[in-house]
Amino acid sequence: MIERLAIVGVGLLGGSVAKAVRARGAAREIVGVGRDLARLRPAVSDGAVDGVTTDLAEGVAGADLVVLGATVLANDALLPAVWAAVPAGACITDVGSTKRSIVREAERLTAERGDVHFVGSHPMAGGEKSGYGVARADLFERATVVVTPTKHRVDSAVDRVTTLWRTLGARVVVWDAEVHDRSVAAISHLPHVVAWALMDAVQRYEPAALDIVAGGFKDTTRIAASDPAVWREILLANRDEVAVSLGAFREALADLERLIAVADPAALESYLARVKTLREAVR
Amino acid sequence: MIERLAIVGVGLLGGSVAKAVRARGAAREIVGVGRDLARLRPAVSDGAVDGVTTDLAEGVAGADLVVLGATVLANDALLPAVWAAVPAGACITDVGSTKRSIVREAERLTAERGDVHFVGSHPMAGGEKSGYGVARADLFERATVVVTPTKHRVDSAVDRVTTLWRTLGARVVVWDAEVHDRSVAAISHLPHVVAWALMDAVQRYEPAALDIVAGGFKDTTRIAASDPAVWREILLANRDEVAVSLGAFREALADLERLIAVADPAALESYLARVKTLREAVR
Repeated sequence: MIERLAIVGVGLLGGSVAKAVRARGAAREIVGVGRDLARLRPAVSDGAVDGVTTDLAEGVAGADLVVLGATVLANDALLPAVWAAVPAGACITDVGSTKRSIVREAERLTAERGDVHFVGSHPMAGGEKSGYGVARADLFERATVVVTPTKHRVDSAVDRVTTLWRTLGARVVVWDAEVHDRSVAAISHLPHVVAWALMDAVQRYEPAALDIVAGGFKDTTRIAASDPAVWREILLANRDEVAVSLGAFREALADLERLIAVADPAALESYLARVKTLREAVR
Repeated sequence: MIERLAIVGVGLLGGSVAKAVRARGAAREIVGVGRDLARLRPAVSDGAVDGVTTDLAEGVAGADLVVLGATVLANDALLPAVWAAVPAGACITDVGSTKRSIVREAERLTAERGDVHFVGSHPMAGGEKSGYGVARADLFERATVVVTPTKHRVDSAVDRVTTLWRTLGARVVVWDAEVHDRSVAAISHLPHVVAWALMDAVQRYEPAALDIVAGGFKDTTRIAASDPAVWREILLANRDEVAVSLGAFREALADLERLIAVADPAALESYLARVKTLREAVR
């Protein structure tokens, strides 16, 4: 049981943690911390949190578990103040989409104060909409959460964070921050970049064609409507790995384009069949 | 009312036409034509068609409306035999994903025999699964169908084909075959190529990352599981326009990659916000 859970940034992910923890009775007290009291109010009204504050130190004081739910750069920036304000033995996690930067910052802070533990989290859940208004108690059910310890890994802290996500219905994998950032470049950041470029290309090439789009186009570009402020930070925080994944994508695209250009039906069909098999193997 | 509707190729699209026409009582008789009697049998068993045959001339004899539901190259190849076998005044359409080639073939055949009318159709409906097993009577409801007349355009024939699709619940736009092929390169063929290359890139770059994929990746790559035999033909039939659309895509991708590389947060956010607005404007 969590005694006092502080959630800093009560948007889609932070708000869903609050609702899910509340729905399962997994914490005695839940406090929401944010910059704008008016935007925190809905979480009080619907009972997801017990109280809200704009004072970070007050919000996390006495918390045995803190979840940073702001954007990746904001989480990095908030971490030192949270670290200084929590009681000894407290555990801090986050829900950011990149992990190397916050894990390094936590390692630096551990050298200064070793009785606070950080274990990163990235719930592979959400959607192109953001804000508390779309938060849901069931958001993490059957989702995968990647948990990233620091080099000062403390097993009990990893267990606490792993238990939190399992309690909310998620499957947990524990990965190094480097492996995480490389993997999400491949299966999340690259698909976003491709979806934005695809939407932009149609607008440049043949905008009137948007009048006849069907499900395939809509599915492929759905994530092109993702939050620009959130994604600006993710892409810049992970830009080295995004660049490498884009290199792999350009190579794959050039190979496929060559198969179309040389008009070899058998080779083309065999490429498409191989990729179909890969896609069908995705859970 | 259609007197005798012949559907040549009773797969996802041809089968859905049969089921939808039957459900609405829009034809007195529906005949299914295919190469394999065993594969045609389910359409007889469930009452979607009145009879089936593997003899093309017998199947289309006496038909006032013929729908070609095979793949694009097969439809092109079948057209002369259908043209020769139908009665005077008959109207032929198809459901293929590219239109220049079959429209040109129909124009050639019109010069030989002018009492048969061809109007192309491309229903923007379907999915990554194919075959009669996934055919549905409601497939065309609220879908868009692009109808492409020949240069010998006969208004009454355009009306008959337009009426067929409207009867099945679709919205119809009438476009030149050239405009159609350029537009579907942009909003259908390009997204497919991008989805295949994306799936292939992840497999090359970081296949272990496929263990943590979420909804965004699945949506973006869903069409990478499309039928290789069908798509081989579509990509080759439209490869000039696919190449042009890929050029536009590469430019858009390079621009976005540059914004990430120079790490200008404001310019990047403004690009993402512009594309989000484009995507949200898609019906």
